[in-house]
Amino acid sequence: MNKLIINFTPTGMIPTKDMTPHVPITVNEIVEDVHKAYEIGITMVHIHARNADTGHPTYKKEVYADIISGIRNYAPDLVICASLSGRNFNTLDKRSDVLHLKGNLKPDMGSLTLSSLNFNKVASMNAPDMIENLAKVMKDKGIVPELEVFDVGMINFGKYLVKKKIIKPPLYYNLLFGNIACAQTNLLHTGVMLNDLQEDAMVSIAGIGNGQLMMNSLAIAIGKGVRVGLEDNIWYDKERTRLATNSELLERIHIIAKANNRPIMTPSEFRMQMMMEPGNGRYGRIYN
Amino acid sequence: MNKLIINFTPTGMIPTKDMTPHVPITVNEIVEDVHKAYEIGITMVHIHARNADTGHPTYKKEVYADIISGIRNYAPDLVICASLSGRNFNTLDKRSDVLHLKGNLKPDMGSLTLSSLNFNKVASMNAPDMIENLAKVMKDKGIVPELEVFDVGMINFGKYLVKKKIIKPPLYYNLLFGNIACAQTNLLHTGVMLNDLQEDAMVSIAGIGNGQLMMNSLAIAIGKGVRVGLEDNIWYDKERTRLATNSELLERIHIIAKANNRPIMTPSEFRMQMMMEPGNGRYGRIYN
Repeated sequence: MNKLIINFTPTGMIPTKDMTPHVPITVNEIVEDVHKAYEIGITMVHIHARNADTGHPTYKKEVYADIISGIRNYAPDLVICASLSGRNFNTLDKRSDVLHLKGNLKPDMGSLTLSSLNFNKVASMNAPDMIENLAKVMKDKGIVPELEVFDVGMINFGKYLVKKKIIKPPLYYNLLFGNIACAQTNLLHTGVMLNDLQEDAMVSIAGIGNGQLMMNSLAIAIGKGVRVGLEDNIWYDKERTRLATNSELLERIHIIAKANNRPIMTPSEFRMQMMMEPGNGRYGRIYN
Repeated sequence: MNKLIINFTPTGMIPTKDMTPHVPITVNEIVEDVHKAYEIGITMVHIHARNADTGHPTYKKEVYADIISGIRNYAPDLVICASLSGRNFNTLDKRSDVLHLKGNLKPDMGSLTLSSLNFNKVASMNAPDMIENLAKVMKDKGIVPELEVFDVGMINFGKYLVKKKIIKPPLYYNLLFGNIACAQTNLLHTGVMLNDLQEDAMVSIAGIGNGQLMMNSLAIAIGKGVRVGLEDNIWYDKERTRLATNSELLERIHIIAKANNRPIMTPSEFRMQMMMEPGNGRYGRIYN
């Protein structure tokens, strides 16, 4: 029983309405896109909040609260991961703001990028002490890290955090391929990274831009999970003739999954494997 | 005739006199250590300048000028690479200061790290535009980049710079293994990185701390160059019972090289392969 984790990433920090009309930006649009995705079938959602007026990324917990409460109205079990990205914000206060939401508004998970890196146009700063501090706040709050890995060496830093007991198994990783100065979308890079991971870690695989379909298909073929959505790729086809909707991207994953005999992992099954309780993150019973 | 490049790194930014009395810090100490190294036999030297009063790293071209002129007094042919590191300084002005030295004081090469990354305690910022700008200043000045790679994906960014004609073959890479969030000192990571490199690129391999001897020996065995010196490792033995001198580290490399039938590449031979002229960097005749 090797079920398929679908980590749905509807928005991200980059796509704008100018780039694609299909990207959900406002709270309502995001809540509605996640609703459609939930009905198609997903395991978890990775959300980024945007400022209502400008459409720019915001770290503010109030916006996250509106998105999370909107989603939980129809999908109380869905695993919700909030972005703690350092691409635009780089103080612990801002990046951990969303982790201070309480009760039913608290995200189940928070993203934790395991090194500084370069995206195609900008650097993303995640100094070692920032990573450790974000992880400590999450541990405090019973929120589970979504470990984000863009290149081979970041897995080693994940192991270091486990060794220092700053993070604790069961572990969940996103492996992202295809950024210009990071691991590329090929079997050698993917193989090395999977080889380095803890054997019992759960993994979703993502590809940037044109690499998304290939890396998702590869992941389904080899028994791993997928990260999919407009955050990483706005096109339906490689030739870039047709802009995708989030639903279309998900429906294609379902077709491939079905043909590969990979049933989708439900949010509840994922919670069980990750020791998370609905709306309370990990160790909900113990710490909250 | 596959001669061994020895890239000598005497100082770096981290070692202090408290950590080891053997690290050369002042201009005179650096000039003297490089002199000993030159007599033992090296191909090139990678220098970091330090402030005379504090011993802290400095970007100032005046200090680099003193070191370079000191070295050129006894070794006019030695290939001199100046660090443009972003670890402590992060404006283009500061990082490119040394590139504005002229005539005999101009370094042959400048280091160019191909992404932002994390060292063990701090982040090193090298945003894409900073890397491109440093490369452009070097191209302008006829100074050759020493391409520094800490993880797999950075090689892809090197290829991107070639494609955009921002850098130009012949290429020289340092591959550095063993930082906590970067490629590790194992054959799989090393193999993937070498596999990704341009076939005709020249390469030196470095290991951090205890990894230095292993990675240097490996490099000698497989026909690649070495980067060696107190910058990366201050101990002579793995058990860390004895602090090394730069000369001792180099003498050990010579013993291993000799047993492996790998003569040392002379500075002049390296200049020929890299199309560099003494004291003038690449394309000296064309642009200067």
